[in-house]
Order: sequence, then C-alpha cells, then structure tokens
Amino acid sequence: MTNTYDFGLVGLGVMGRNFILNVADNGFTAFGNDLDSEKVDALIKEGGNTKKVNAATDVKTFVSALGTPRKIMLLVPAGKIVDSVIENLLPFLNEGDIIIDGGNSFFTDTDRREAYLKDKGIHFFGAGVSGGAKGARKGPSIMPGGSKEAYQHVKPIFEAVSAKYKGEPCVAYLGPKSAGNYVKMVHNGIEYGLMQLTSEIYDVLKKAGRLTNTELHQIFAQWNQGRLQSFLVQITSDILAQKDDFTEADLVDMILDKAKQKGTGKWTSQNAMDLGIPVPTIDIAVSMREISALKDERILADGLYDTPSPEPLEKDTLVSKTEKALFFAFIMAYAQGMHQLADASKEYGYNLDLGEIAKIWRAGCIIRAALLADITEAFKENSRLPNLLLSPAFVDKVKETVGAARELVGYGATNGIPLPGLSSSLTYFDAYTSSRLPLNLIQAQRDYFGSHTYERLDRKGVFHTEWEK
Amino acid sequence: MTNTYDFGLVGLGVMGRNFILNVADNGFTAFGNDLDSEKVDALIKEGGNTKKVNAATDVKTFVSALGTPRKIMLLVPAGKIVDSVIENLLPFLNEGDIIIDGGNSFFTDTDRREAYLKDKGIHFFGAGVSGGAKGARKGPSIMPGGSKEAYQHVKPIFEAVSAKYKGEPCVAYLGPKSAGNYVKMVHNGIEYGLMQLTSEIYDVLKKAGRLTNTELHQIFAQWNQGRLQSFLVQITSDILAQKDDFTEADLVDMILDKAKQKGTGKWTSQNAMDLGIPVPTIDIAVSMREISALKDERILADGLYDTPSPEPLEKDTLVSKTEKALFFAFIMAYAQGMHQLADASKEYGYNLDLGEIAKIWRAGCIIRAALLADITEAFKENSRLPNLLLSPAFVDKVKETVGAARELVGYGATNGIPLPGLSSSLTYFDAYTSSRLPLNLIQAQRDYFGSHTYERLDRKGVFHTEWEK
Repeated sequence: MTNTYDFGLVGLGVMGRNFILNVADNGFTAFGNDLDSEKVDALIKEGGNTKKVNAATDVKTFVSALGTPRKIMLLVPAGKIVDSVIENLLPFLNEGDIIIDGGNSFFTDTDRREAYLKDKGIHFFGAGVSGGAKGARKGPSIMPGGSKEAYQHVKPIFEAVSAKYKGEPCVAYLGPKSAGNYVKMVHNGIEYGLMQLTSEIYDVLKKAGRLTNTELHQIFAQWNQGRLQSFLVQITSDILAQKDDFTEADLVDMILDKAKQKGTGKWTSQNAMDLGIPVPTIDIAVSMREISALKDERILADGLYDTPSPEPLEKDTLVSKTEKALFFAFIMAYAQGMHQLADASKEYGYNLDLGEIAKIWRAGCIIRAALLADITEAFKENSRLPNLLLSPAFVDKVKETVGAARELVGYGATNGIPLPGLSSSLTYFDAYTSSRLPLNLIQAQRDYFGSHTYERLDRKGVFHTEWEK
Repeated sequence: MTNTYDFGLVGLGVMGRNFILNVADNGFTAFGNDLDSEKVDALIKEGGNTKKVNAATDVKTFVSALGTPRKIMLLVPAGKIVDSVIENLLPFLNEGDIIIDGGNSFFTDTDRREAYLKDKGIHFFGAGVSGGAKGARKGPSIMPGGSKEAYQHVKPIFEAVSAKYKGEPCVAYLGPKSAGNYVKMVHNGIEYGLMQLTSEIYDVLKKAGRLTNTELHQIFAQWNQGRLQSFLVQITSDILAQKDDFTEADLVDMILDKAKQKGTGKWTSQNAMDLGIPVPTIDIAVSMREISALKDERILADGLYDTPSPEPLEKDTLVSKTEKALFFAFIMAYAQGMHQLADASKEYGYNLDLGEIAKIWRAGCIIRAALLADITEAFKENSRLPNLLLSPAFVDKVKETVGAARELVGYGATNGIPLPGLSSSLTYFDAYTSSRLPLNLIQAQRDYFGSHTYERLDRKGVFHTEWEK
C-alpha cells in the first residue's frame, strides 16, 4: 500500500471527506489524514474499499502512502492551523512534492507560505474551492494558483473532480503565488453582494407586494428559469418553501435576522480600498451583516422612530420591476469584483485571465449564474476590458433594467424599506457613468484647508490657491 | 542658550512652522529642527527673536537647546520618516523625555513606537492635530494619547496653543497608547463623509435648481448661520465665490473632479470592518474618491449610456429640502464615527470619553460644527450611549429631517444624480432602526450551502437544516 495513492487530503471534515470521495469516484486512489480517529474510520467505512480510499491519523503513515510527487491537499480552517499542518508534514516530504491549501486563506499568508516552501523545494498552491459541501462531493469550482509546472501534476485530478459547464471543467491554472486564494476571496466578496441584493428583493416583495412565502418561492423559481438563473436564486426559492420543524410557520420566518460572516467579504472590501478600486455593493453587504448583528440596538431604535407604512404596489408590476432591478444590481456586483481582479492582477503580478475566471465560475461555485456565460464572452471579446459596464453586450442589459432599479430605490427611500445594496449599485452606476462628478468641490476643500493642491480641466499642472481673504 | 527652550519641534514645513510660531505667541520658548537649512533660516527670520524662537539643522544642537524633560513634537510625514527621526533623536535624549508625533500615523505604528520607547524610558505620544495650516498657526484641535503622567508636562503648552470653544481649550488627554492617533483617524473618516455629502448637495442644487455659483455661495453662507454651521460649510461658501485667475470663470468650475486621498479615510473604513462596526457613509466617501479618479473610464462610460435630464425643482423648496437632508446626513456621519470610537475604546483599551472628544472637536478642527455641541451634550447625559440615534435630542432632529432625505434620495435615483453619501446615510438609518431585517434569508442561504447554522427567533440554540431534498 506504500507509495501508491494518487492524492492525499488532510482534514476530514465535511468538505474534506466529500472532496476525497469525489476524487475516488473519478478513478483516483486517495488517502486521508485527520487527528480525529472517528473521522478516519468514518471515511474508510464510507469509501468501502481501502485500495481506493484509505486514511490514517498518523502523518508518517499518511505521507508514505502517497505516490511521488506527492499531491497533498489541506482542507482545514484558515489561519495558524495551516502553518502547523505544514510543519507536521515537512519532515516526511521530498523535493518536488506539492501541498495544496484548499481553504480560504488570506492571500498574503499564501504568499508567505509559498516562499517558505519554495526554499525547501516544495510546491505550494493556494486553491480556492467553492460549492459548499455538495459541491465538494459532486463537483466544485476550483481556483488554483502557484507554480505552473507543478500544476501539471494536479491538473488531471482537479479537472476530473471539478464541476463541468457544458463539458468544460470548472478549474484552470490562474496564476502564480496567491492568485488562487485572491480570486476565491473576490468570488466570496461578489457572493456577499449577491446575497445582500437577494435579501433586499425578498424584503421589498414581501413589504410592497404583501406576497406570501409560497408566492415568493414561485417567483424565485420562475426567475431561476430566466436570465437571473443562478445558484443563489435557486436556493432562495428552495428556502422559501421550507416548513419549520418546530412550529406551523415557514422556516424562513423563524430564523433570526443576524447574519454572521467569516471574513472573506471583509477582506475583499479592505483590499479593494488598498488597491483604490470601488466595490460599494460589496462594502455595503459587509456593513449590513454588521448592522444585522446589532439586533438589540435595532429594536431600541425602532421604538424611537416612526417607520412609514409601505405603500402597496400591484403584484405583477412589482415582480417585473424587482426582476429587472435584481438583474441590474447583479451586474454591478460582478462588474465591481471583476474590476478589482483586473487591478489586483497588475498590482500583484498574477497575470489573470478574467475570461478564464468567469468561465470556471459558470458551474460548481456559489456565484454560478447564467450571467457568467455573458461575462465570459465579454472578456473573450476584449481581455483588457477595464469594466463590464463598457462592454457593448452589457450596455444593452443595463439600459433595459436601470429604470426599474431607479424606481425601486426611490420607492425604498420614500417608504423606509432599506435597500442599501440596490442603492449602492445604482449610485455606483450613476457615478461611474458621470463624466463630471462634484468632487471638484472636494479638491477645492482639500486645497483650502490643507494646501493639498488641485488639477484643472483646462490646463496641465498642479495648482494651489490662497483661498482665505 | 542651552537647556532653556520649553518646546522642540522637528519638521518645519507649513504645519510645523505655524505650530511653533503659535507656541511662541503663547509665551513659551521654542526650538525647531529641520534638515533643510532654508526652512531653519525662514523660521528664525519669521520668529524675529532667537531667545523666543530658534532653530538648527543639527540634531544635537537642537536637543541640547531644550529644557528637561524635553518635549519634542514631530510634524513630519507619516511612515518610515517618523522612525528615522526617532532614531536620530535617541542618542541625545534622557530618561523622562517626551516625543510627540503630531502626524497622521497609523495607530498600530504608534503602539509599536510607544512600546519601543517605553523600554528606553522615553514617553511617546501620538497626538493628532487638526485644523490645517491656519489651525496650526491660530489654534488647532489636538488629540493626544499616551502616558497620563507625562501628559502633565505637555498640557500647559497644548492648552495654550489649542483652539478655544467659549474659552475651553480644544485639547484633552484622550487615553493610553495610540488613543490620540486613533481618534484623529476617525475624525478624518468623518471628515471624508461630510465632504462627500457637501459635494452631493452642491451637485443636486446645481442640477435640480440650476443655481449659479453666486446663489450657491449665498446659500452655503446662510446655512453657516444656522444648525449646519461648520467649517466645511463655511469654506464651501468661500470656495463658491472664488474667481479664477486664468479665465473668466468661477474657480470651482475649472477644478478637475478627481479627488485625492492620503489614507486616513480608508484606514477608518478598513478598521471599522475589523471591529465589525458599520460606517457606510465613510466607506462610500472613500469609494467615491476612487471612482472620481477613474476620469477616463467615466468619460467613456458616459458616452455609452443615456443620462436622464434632471427634472427642475422650485428653488426655495429645494433649498429647504437640501438643508434638511444635509443636516440629517451629517448626523449619520457623526453617529457612525462615534459608534466606531465607542467600540474601538473597548477593543483597544483606550477608555475613551466620547463627550470629551466631541468637546475638543467643537473648535479648531476640520469637522468643527455647531452639531458637536449637541453631540457633547448627548454623551454628557449618557456616557454609554451606544449610538447617537438613540439619544432623545437626536431623535427629534432626525425625525424632522429624514423626510427631506427620503425625497432627495428618490429624486437623485430617478434623475440619475448620484447621491451615494446621502443614500448610504439614509439606508444606514433605515437599517439601524429596523427591528427586523431580511438577513434571516442570508443566514438560511449560508446554512443551505455551507452548513453554517442559524439561530431562531423563538428559541435559544444553534440550528441546522438539511435543506436539499
């Protein structure tokens, strides 16, 4: 049994177990490792044949079981655990072996680990995996970055286990160093945006249209047959049909409205600010999770202010408007994320192919959506497109839907229904498409109080005015 | 001349020169230091009497000239320069000497420097200074943090040179470690918010009211006599009256609409995300500076989309609505900043007194405003107020103005005038005052695809559902 297994995996939680079973399903032999002997036993039992899927708690046994160059994937929580797993593996590895971090590690951690292991002759990949537990089992989208040569050893396995979109695998070599983790981080940032937008549309349908959960379930299901087709719209439809186990109610109505987060959305926003790239739809999605956490303060505040009673809207008109507005805002979320990737590619030397990224997001991952086929096309047509909003195909889509977004934002503002994601998406659009913004005043203010100087519209150079009389 | 000067200052740029002359005006003797001999000579000349104001390029001469414990303020650009200035000073200092960093250093740098110098028996203060060049000369707001005992040596000088609000000095000991730099950072974050909001209101008055710069100048001047009274409203009025030197135009119309930034607003947003505190009005102000920088893309995009022609609004109604909306949004910006300070105080052990902070912001600094007297009162009444929006005095102010904000946001959305700061302020308010938000759907989605679990409204505990059939 020594030196024969094709693929090793450390961390046999839900994601790890599912991923290794997926590898085995695709004809590769795989060996798992976890400190927890129950997890090891469970995997062996579920695998059914130790020649195909085996596992051990002992690191030496685990490493010895793998064929060289060893391909060892880690599916453990991001942070210090990744470093300690690497240290435990190191004494048993040989030059040329490959470690793949499949978790949501922060990209600078991946750069550090890659440099550290390169010195020891070990290849290190940050490979974001998206698709949740089911994706890991049936086919996730995989976003690997690292050494291009070493990737050739991993490629057959990843292409086999990944999701397929019309037969094409949802995995591709993305770039050197932390390119894979970076792309996965922005994927998650977009995901935050789409989730926030979906929740707002659900809210406005409920409040303005007085729709029941059954009606909402049907509307989202219907949308999932059209241009809004996407994993998040589909699961929203499923969620709205779920009955509660404890009460007569629908489950969604019993869930506490405090949304948790694990940090990838926040990292996306924070890093976009470092790059100087505006991603307001993602920023506000992060803020809204924070506001949602302040439930006690919100209850207090709600008691102090009068909330307007939403004016009811006719159902069919409302459904049509919300469909358009959601489509419009989805485009803005993807546009912002792709814009960030384009800039990060230059800043960090990733040399990303945005069309290729959109392509591997078309299936398997959480943000998979019909729209991604159009995004793939847009970048295939022009790989240097600075922003999706400048793509002719998107101009038409946006023109057709922006009016509905305008009306809904206005409705939300007037009727006290918070639509922060939709509003941010609209103001992003209106600002990005304004050749002239009022920030000339801000430059004047900065020069007034801080002598920070300004540029002019009509001549080159840097100017300062003695403003005070 | 050795060992006699009360105060030393390194960095004789505009801020440094003005600050040291201010110290001298207040009866203290002061000694400056700069590598640039022209700046040293200029200060000596402007000081007029070397017994009162003297300066040298040589560090040893500079340090020897100061009475002990030495009080040495640095007004040099944030970053590595601060560290190298400290290293240059160190060989000549004695235990008990005090270094004060008056720049916008990032707060973790201040913590690092404070710990490093403590080991050597030197006290280190991060002391934010706000008020621009004129403030430094005539009276800034000063935000010092560090050792409380050592502050006693600095206090008489800072209280003398600081701005006064009804006779009270705009300086106070704020807390240990980097408390001073942190408070200054959030001050600047709020400043970004207020500037963005002012620029939007200027824009909507121009586009919806077709007002001339002269009319705009008068409106801002008039607002500066009322509850909007503030430095930024005042200088906006001044700016709108400024004629251009090169053309027949008003200067504001000739300034390029690309707003620069030096990072403090970005830091405020990024750190708020680390703390989990929502500051969307500040976030969007940062994003808008980024969007403004994309001038070439904006021009391209503007050519691809049809911008609605703004429907004209009757002037008096518009002026009244914009005044209310701006007041409403100013409150939101301060509320978010104070909320961040309250949380940072716990997280970093600053033990901040928010009422005291509002108090020292009432004069001298860039965000000084009549509103700060009300904010001071609100925190005096309840020092543990979690958010300004929960203060009875503010409930009334907000109730009176929120309707105008709703109308303007609706107007901007419909008419394609980007009002991102105002929109974010309104959605922040609507979300913060919602006892129930639609983020229950987001928790359901997270549990669906990632088994992240959820809480319930009706019973304690953590729950997971097998959503997929």
